[in-house]
Amino acid sequence: MPVRAAAPVAAPIGVFDSGIGGLTVLAALVRALPSERFIYLGDTARLPYGTKSGATVTRYAAQAAATLLTRGVKLLVVACNTAASVGLDAVRAASGAVPVIGVIEPGAEAAAQASPSGRIAVIATEATVRGGAYRQAILRRRPAAQVTEQAAQLLVAMAEEGVHEGPLAHGAVRHYLGTLFDSEAAPDTLVLGCTHFPLLRPAIRDVIGPGTRLVDSAETTAAAVHAQLEAAGLARVAADPARTGRVDPGRSGSSPILQFLATDSPERFARVGGRFLGGALAAADVELVDL
Amino acid sequence: MPVRAAAPVAAPIGVFDSGIGGLTVLAALVRALPSERFIYLGDTARLPYGTKSGATVTRYAAQAAATLLTRGVKLLVVACNTAASVGLDAVRAASGAVPVIGVIEPGAEAAAQASPSGRIAVIATEATVRGGAYRQAILRRRPAAQVTEQAAQLLVAMAEEGVHEGPLAHGAVRHYLGTLFDSEAAPDTLVLGCTHFPLLRPAIRDVIGPGTRLVDSAETTAAAVHAQLEAAGLARVAADPARTGRVDPGRSGSSPILQFLATDSPERFARVGGRFLGGALAAADVELVDL
Repeated sequence: MPVRAAAPVAAPIGVFDSGIGGLTVLAALVRALPSERFIYLGDTARLPYGTKSGATVTRYAAQAAATLLTRGVKLLVVACNTAASVGLDAVRAASGAVPVIGVIEPGAEAAAQASPSGRIAVIATEATVRGGAYRQAILRRRPAAQVTEQAAQLLVAMAEEGVHEGPLAHGAVRHYLGTLFDSEAAPDTLVLGCTHFPLLRPAIRDVIGPGTRLVDSAETTAAAVHAQLEAAGLARVAADPARTGRVDPGRSGSSPILQFLATDSPERFARVGGRFLGGALAAADVELVDL
Repeated sequence: MPVRAAAPVAAPIGVFDSGIGGLTVLAALVRALPSERFIYLGDTARLPYGTKSGATVTRYAAQAAATLLTRGVKLLVVACNTAASVGLDAVRAASGAVPVIGVIEPGAEAAAQASPSGRIAVIATEATVRGGAYRQAILRRRPAAQVTEQAAQLLVAMAEEGVHEGPLAHGAVRHYLGTLFDSEAAPDTLVLGCTHFPLLRPAIRDVIGPGTRLVDSAETTAAAVHAQLEAAGLARVAADPARTGRVDPGRSGSSPILQFLATDSPERFARVGGRFLGGALAAADVELVDL
């Protein structure tokens, strides 16, 4: 495989996820980097990644990255926690000079800094927990931390189904976190280690109580991308006066500010994706691709 | 594509599903047809089918069928309701002289016969409901029936997570069915239109009450397969004296009675699949395949 050369400053940033959950990361990126353009790829035909083996997730992640690289992105964000947890090395190997940032390291950094006691819980998909990447990334920064990882697969389905509040959402969060957070030595910090979970924030907050720190990777990943662009001389400096950081698939000159690619139904992507992005999406703005 | 010829009587029956839910159908087939051999394929790398578009499900179903046909099956059972709902024509087109039986028609037949009033509810995946195959199949048999279809995607995740009883399972069933079955004109028959749902039978029974008929496609599909084998002269008549209808990956002479193929982790297939099959499964009995 030829080593991929660095892309020009004007190139877009590629963001990929197993589906639509990564749109919460995209929204944070757009807010933090209002001068940049983005291409988002959701592998909706093969989601979820979170119940699949490391080998399969790695293969899918490498295919998704390759598709974004052919679109000439200047930096690649692995917004899917599962893919970042188990497939980051494969994506980096395929990306040559194009920098790759996953959501795990920024999330672990934020958790290590936020926790007063070092008792940190992580909820994530089955595959992310099995890979142990959050635990390792937190312990590298804070070796004395006590990290509890909990797979919470039902919460993914609830977020996608739009069941974000009420007794059912509450019951599912309690199912996974009730015992842990009712204990004497409850964690003081909870990492939302899946892009779907911020949608359930009110139910999660109810169960973990008002004093627990909540960390989601979206904001910290956006900050890490910002720093990497600056360090690599890849940041766009001439902000488009029409850009306001709104999450809006508008245009910057002749290029779209946000482009969406999906491997399955653009209609479903637009319908469910709007909830994650925090803004309306039209199916006509979503391009169907095959990986 | 060449027309595929009929296979010999001694050939196995192919059963495919998006994942492991179809093992409930396989278990019914083994009980009903104790002289037969079976090859089961679970497309676990790409599950679930139920949230995906008709075009994607059709493509995946045709690939799964092609894989089983290359193994020389004499009859093909589409155990996945979603695939049977939207992809049956494509599977039939690829199967030539090999008969294909989906789970929808037998389930619809059972429901049309079971319901005293004709008020029939169907719970299924999003894609199955969108396709409307159950409604159409029931109305063909009973034109005056009142069919209510309800997508119940969370129940799929609950069955896979092993949350089959208790307040959370109960709450999820009530979320989808509570209003419908609390009404004056409640259905008298409920079709479990997804192979995952029989695992939640106690919680479902609690919500719909003791008088409602419950239809699942497994038993009726097994009967339909039996009838088709007899009609086509494809039934094995010399029952192996060692066979007792047990669900057990034993051997009949030199050939295995049950073979399992999966597109992702044999370990997870064996672990979760045992719950569906109603018998222990070892990862070593599951062959990893790529479609």
